[in-house]
Amino acid sequence: MPMDENTLFDEPDGFAAGESGPGTSGTHDSGVERVARWFERHADLEGRFSSVFRQALDEVLDGQRTGRYDVDTLEKTEKTYLGTKVEIVCRVAFGLPFGDEMDYRVAEQEVDAKFSLEGKWMIPREAMGHLCLLMAANDRRSTFKVGLVRISEDVLTRGGNQDGKRSISLAGRKHIKWLCREGRLKTNLLLALDPSTRAVLERVPEGQNRVDQLFRHVHGRIIDRNAVVTVAKQLDAPKRVRDARQRLAPEGVVILGAQNESPHVAKALRLPTPDKGTWIAVRLVPAPRGEDDRPQVWIKGVPYAVARPDEPKCPAPTIAY
Amino acid sequence: MPMDENTLFDEPDGFAAGESGPGTSGTHDSGVERVARWFERHADLEGRFSSVFRQALDEVLDGQRTGRYDVDTLEKTEKTYLGTKVEIVCRVAFGLPFGDEMDYRVAEQEVDAKFSLEGKWMIPREAMGHLCLLMAANDRRSTFKVGLVRISEDVLTRGGNQDGKRSISLAGRKHIKWLCREGRLKTNLLLALDPSTRAVLERVPEGQNRVDQLFRHVHGRIIDRNAVVTVAKQLDAPKRVRDARQRLAPEGVVILGAQNESPHVAKALRLPTPDKGTWIAVRLVPAPRGEDDRPQVWIKGVPYAVARPDEPKCPAPTIAY
Repeated sequence: MPMDENTLFDEPDGFAAGESGPGTSGTHDSGVERVARWFERHADLEGRFSSVFRQALDEVLDGQRTGRYDVDTLEKTEKTYLGTKVEIVCRVAFGLPFGDEMDYRVAEQEVDAKFSLEGKWMIPREAMGHLCLLMAANDRRSTFKVGLVRISEDVLTRGGNQDGKRSISLAGRKHIKWLCREGRLKTNLLLALDPSTRAVLERVPEGQNRVDQLFRHVHGRIIDRNAVVTVAKQLDAPKRVRDARQRLAPEGVVILGAQNESPHVAKALRLPTPDKGTWIAVRLVPAPRGEDDRPQVWIKGVPYAVARPDEPKCPAPTIAY
Repeated sequence: MPMDENTLFDEPDGFAAGESGPGTSGTHDSGVERVARWFERHADLEGRFSSVFRQALDEVLDGQRTGRYDVDTLEKTEKTYLGTKVEIVCRVAFGLPFGDEMDYRVAEQEVDAKFSLEGKWMIPREAMGHLCLLMAANDRRSTFKVGLVRISEDVLTRGGNQDGKRSISLAGRKHIKWLCREGRLKTNLLLALDPSTRAVLERVPEGQNRVDQLFRHVHGRIIDRNAVVTVAKQLDAPKRVRDARQRLAPEGVVILGAQNESPHVAKALRLPTPDKGTWIAVRLVPAPRGEDDRPQVWIKGVPYAVARPDEPKCPAPTIAY
C-alpha cells in the first residue's frame, strides 16, 4: 500500500511500518532521551496529556456560548489558536518553564510545542537543532499522539510553505520518540453520539429542554459538565441537571452524580460511577418478581432495575443526590 | 496637526474634527439607523459592550494559567483570535442570530463583526454593501469604541493588504455611526497599577504570596476575581482571598467582600462597595480619641479608621465576611 503523509489519522496503522514501535527508541539522541525520561517520570502521563487536549479543545469550541462540539466547525483562526492554547495548557499541566529560544525548557533542552489536529506539524526555521514536542489529537477517534524529535535536515520535508515552515518527512517520522503513540483522548460525548440521537436532541432548542433530551435519551454513559453546558448554551451545569432530574422523574429517569447515594446506586446497577462534575442517567422500573437477571438496587424496600425499552414508565424512586 | 489613520487611540481627540459628534449621525443610511436603534434599545448599552470586551480580553490573556494581564504580551495568533472571541461573546451578549452572509443578522441587515485593538479595522471584500459593527478596545486607556458603517468604495482606503482587505479611510470614518464613541472599559487593575506597586508584587512568586502582596499594597480600589486568579496563577479566587485575610489580619488589613458585614463596613468608611466576585482591601487602626476627620466604623465597640501610612500596625478587627 502506498503511504503518504496524510495518513497519520486517516489510516491509524498505515504508518506503523516506518516507525519505532512502543517501547523502542527511534533515535539515540541523548537530549531526546532525557526529555522523554523527564515526561515519563510523571504518574499517568497518558491521562495528563488527555486532559490537556480535552481542556484545550473544549475551551476553543466554547460550547457554553456557541453550542459547538465539533472541531471541524471551528474557524481557521480558532484552529490556529488551538495550538497556542495547547501550548499554554500543557505548560501548566507539567509546570514547564519558558525556554530561551523555544517554548519550554525541559531537562536542559530547548523544546518547542507543536500541535496539529491532523498530525501534520509545521516546523519553523528557528526550531532547527532543537527538540519539538509533537502533539496531535483526533476528537472523532478519541485518540492522541505525543512524541519528541530533534529537528534536523534529516527529518524535514524539502519544500517549505510561504512562511518557510516545513513538515516532518516520512523518513523523519522514524526518528520520533513516542511518549504516547495511541493515547486515549477523553471522549467528546456529543461528537460521539450516533446521528439519530443527535437529531432527537436537536428537535428542541438549546437550553433546558435540550438538557432534558440529553438525559432522557443518553443512558448508561458518563455525561460531563462540558456536554451539559454545550446543549444548555449556558453556565451552571449542576442547576441544569437538578432541573432535568425533576422534569424526568415522572418518566422514571434518574440522573446519578458523584455524591451521597449516587455512587452506591451506580455500583449496585453495575454502571460506571460518575466522578465530580459528571453524571450518568438511566430509566428505572421496579424489578419484576421472580426470575430477572438484571442488577438491582433496593431503594426504600423496593428493588429497581434499569428499564428495558418496552417496559412501561414508572415514576423514579427518590434518591438522595 | 497632521492626522493619520494610526491616531485612533494615540490621539483620542485627534480625529474628532473629521467625524460626527455624539448624538448626530454621519450617515443617512436607513439600514444603519435601524441597526443603531436596535442596539440602542438595550438598557446600559455601554456596560454591555464593556463586559463583552473585558470578558474577551481576560479569556484570551488567560491570566489564571499564564499570569498575563497586558494585551501587548499576547502572541500574534492570540491577537487574531481575540477578534473571534469578541464576535462570539458579543453574539451571546445581544442574542444575535447568524446572518446569511455576514456574522450577524440585526434588524433585517447583514452585519459583520470587526474588532481591532488599535481601531484599524480590516474589511474583507465580502463585506461590500453590508454593515460592519466596528469595535475597538484600549485596555491601557480603559476605553472602547463601537460604531456602525455600511461598506462601500467611499469608506475604504484604496490599497489592500495581501488578503485583499482594506481599512476604513479617514473620509470613511465620517460615515461611522457611533454607538459608543468613548465607552468606559472596565479597568484592568493589574495593567493600571503604577510600576512601583507592580514591582512590589513581583518581588514574590506567583501564588498565595503574590495574592497577599496584592491585598497588602493595593488599598481602596476594587479588586476583581480576574486580578486575583492572575496573580495567584490558579483558580478559586475566594479561597485565595480567605487565606490572604488570615495572613494579613495581624497587620491590620481587612479585605471586604460583597456579603455579610462587608458592605456596611465599606459604606461607613466611604469606600466603594464590592459587587459579588470583587473585593476591596484597607488597613484599619483604632481611630484616635479627639479630633480625627476620617470616616469611622464601629466594630465591637471600637471606632476604626483607614490607617495613614505612618500609623503603627494594629491587628485587624474581626468582621463577619
